[in-house]
Amino acid sequence: MQRISLAHGEGGEVANELIQKVFIKSFGHSKHTQFDSAILSLREQTIAVTTDSFVVNPLFFPGGNIGKLAIAGTVNDLAVSGAIPYVLTAGFIIEEGFPIKSLKDIVKTMAEEAERAGVTIVAGDTKVVEKGSADGLFINTTGIGIVQEKRLQPELIQEGDSVLISGTIGDHGVAILSARQELGLLTNVQSDCASLTGIIHELLEEVKGVRIMRDPTRGGLATTLVELCEDFRFSIELDEDLIPVRKDVQGACDILGYDPLYLANEGKVVIIVDSNEEQKALALLQSYEIGKNAKVIGKVASCEDESGKLLLKTIVGTTKRLNRLAGPLLPRIC
Amino acid sequence: MQRISLAHGEGGEVANELIQKVFIKSFGHSKHTQFDSAILSLREQTIAVTTDSFVVNPLFFPGGNIGKLAIAGTVNDLAVSGAIPYVLTAGFIIEEGFPIKSLKDIVKTMAEEAERAGVTIVAGDTKVVEKGSADGLFINTTGIGIVQEKRLQPELIQEGDSVLISGTIGDHGVAILSARQELGLLTNVQSDCASLTGIIHELLEEVKGVRIMRDPTRGGLATTLVELCEDFRFSIELDEDLIPVRKDVQGACDILGYDPLYLANEGKVVIIVDSNEEQKALALLQSYEIGKNAKVIGKVASCEDESGKLLLKTIVGTTKRLNRLAGPLLPRIC
Repeated sequence: MQRISLAHGEGGEVANELIQKVFIKSFGHSKHTQFDSAILSLREQTIAVTTDSFVVNPLFFPGGNIGKLAIAGTVNDLAVSGAIPYVLTAGFIIEEGFPIKSLKDIVKTMAEEAERAGVTIVAGDTKVVEKGSADGLFINTTGIGIVQEKRLQPELIQEGDSVLISGTIGDHGVAILSARQELGLLTNVQSDCASLTGIIHELLEEVKGVRIMRDPTRGGLATTLVELCEDFRFSIELDEDLIPVRKDVQGACDILGYDPLYLANEGKVVIIVDSNEEQKALALLQSYEIGKNAKVIGKVASCEDESGKLLLKTIVGTTKRLNRLAGPLLPRIC
Repeated sequence: MQRISLAHGEGGEVANELIQKVFIKSFGHSKHTQFDSAILSLREQTIAVTTDSFVVNPLFFPGGNIGKLAIAGTVNDLAVSGAIPYVLTAGFIIEEGFPIKSLKDIVKTMAEEAERAGVTIVAGDTKVVEKGSADGLFINTTGIGIVQEKRLQPELIQEGDSVLISGTIGDHGVAILSARQELGLLTNVQSDCASLTGIIHELLEEVKGVRIMRDPTRGGLATTLVELCEDFRFSIELDEDLIPVRKDVQGACDILGYDPLYLANEGKVVIIVDSNEEQKALALLQSYEIGKNAKVIGKVASCEDESGKLLLKTIVGTTKRLNRLAGPLLPRIC
């Protein structure tokens, strides 16, 4: 068994061998699997549910692989919703001929990242398609989290609230570009791909007045904040000078004509918090290795803005309105 | 907007348009979407979770399409676990150039089937890959169900328990073969693709002594029962003569060398029930249109069988042991 064959996708003897030797070896065998569904008892009444498919190209990149991304991405969606990630499901669509070795490496990374994030993978599925019908491997992860009593309070967002980011932006986007060798130059940029459960959980425990959080993935920080402004009808003014960007990320962007504000991040959280709690939140973020470059990057400019604008005070002192990512930028970034 | 472009997968303006015009139009807009995860309050403490990716080829076939299959398949996995399907998530991986019209048709079917099954689609995700990197459309659906107090009791399985199937087997497999025009002949066989929530819910309400259920999808009735026998360490004897198979399905199998016992079903349930309740269960199944061809097809031969054997009493009177589906049969049947 060195490469995936179509028989691995058909639910028979060969598929059973794949599940035993690759998946159960890493994820463990749960008694839940006696049923067609995983059966779970919940300690609380309110759950959060999120789903994501991962199609990143290439599958392995500096700082991670598709498996790490799938776990971290889903766990982070739950965490920013104020939920503690509880269980995940994992669905694999595999191209015929895919190396079993690579699959094992990816699944092993998933198991490690899930352990780090404190979640269990309780249900899985594998499908195999003919050579040429998929590009190597796609993974869907769906996550269920337990919503904490100490909920986010977007309804309390008010003028003057602070906007914080937990670290430098655009790292994941440039790491992927670098892995695709589209940069035409060498960079040492690693993807920031990481689970944020620990840092977010402590933030919600220790800091009162956290209004809302988001993980700025596809579409980058700008698109994420535009959506937030539109959904909740307030406006934000960011200060370009304060937004942390690695020099090599900015350099790569300058050469290729990308804007770090629109590049994907996979281990960052953007937080809106009561300005009175801003410094406490900042200190807490900075006490973590993954939050050491955290910064206050702007503020809520108005909380009664029907059109929900995202404004950027540029380095030269002008103010411009930012929109969603408009056209094609970087396909298959996650 | 007639065909899917890479920009539809990038989380920007174009992606937003796709979500608004295709998905929200059919699935509706939920207030849950204000967060990165759907937030749900549960009425009970115990949930069932299942995940499946669908890669069926072709996407449209007699009796359904990939969307109907995705909903029914996931809902049925929950139902046979003794849970009432509650919410679903849907993840779409779309090939660049895919017709928006087809996507709309599929999504509309999903919304209809979800309504029929009484579930809400609470979270979604779309990714787009370059032309040639996927075959049209893949869908992952993950389902959460509420486990009922009246649980299945596999621990009570005993010698003499009856094995029932809710209708003819192999219909879905032959419908897909027919749609692929691999039969070289015309058949009128429709896929049995359907949600079984109603019929299973009533069965669990009305019939005491339902030990366990399964939906015999990939790998067919034989593989499903082999897995059950191995997991719970009992043996089953099926009576070949009693297993309902449509004449045209049997005919297609005879010509092509397939065995209906190993062909996929997408709207059937196999049930192990106390023999005293067998007739009541049978009558209840037969009172439904989708259960009108239900039959008792065998019995539990021994409940202390470490090796968990599935035996078939053939039409000619011999008894043979059935194994899992062994090699490649029908890739991308679901």
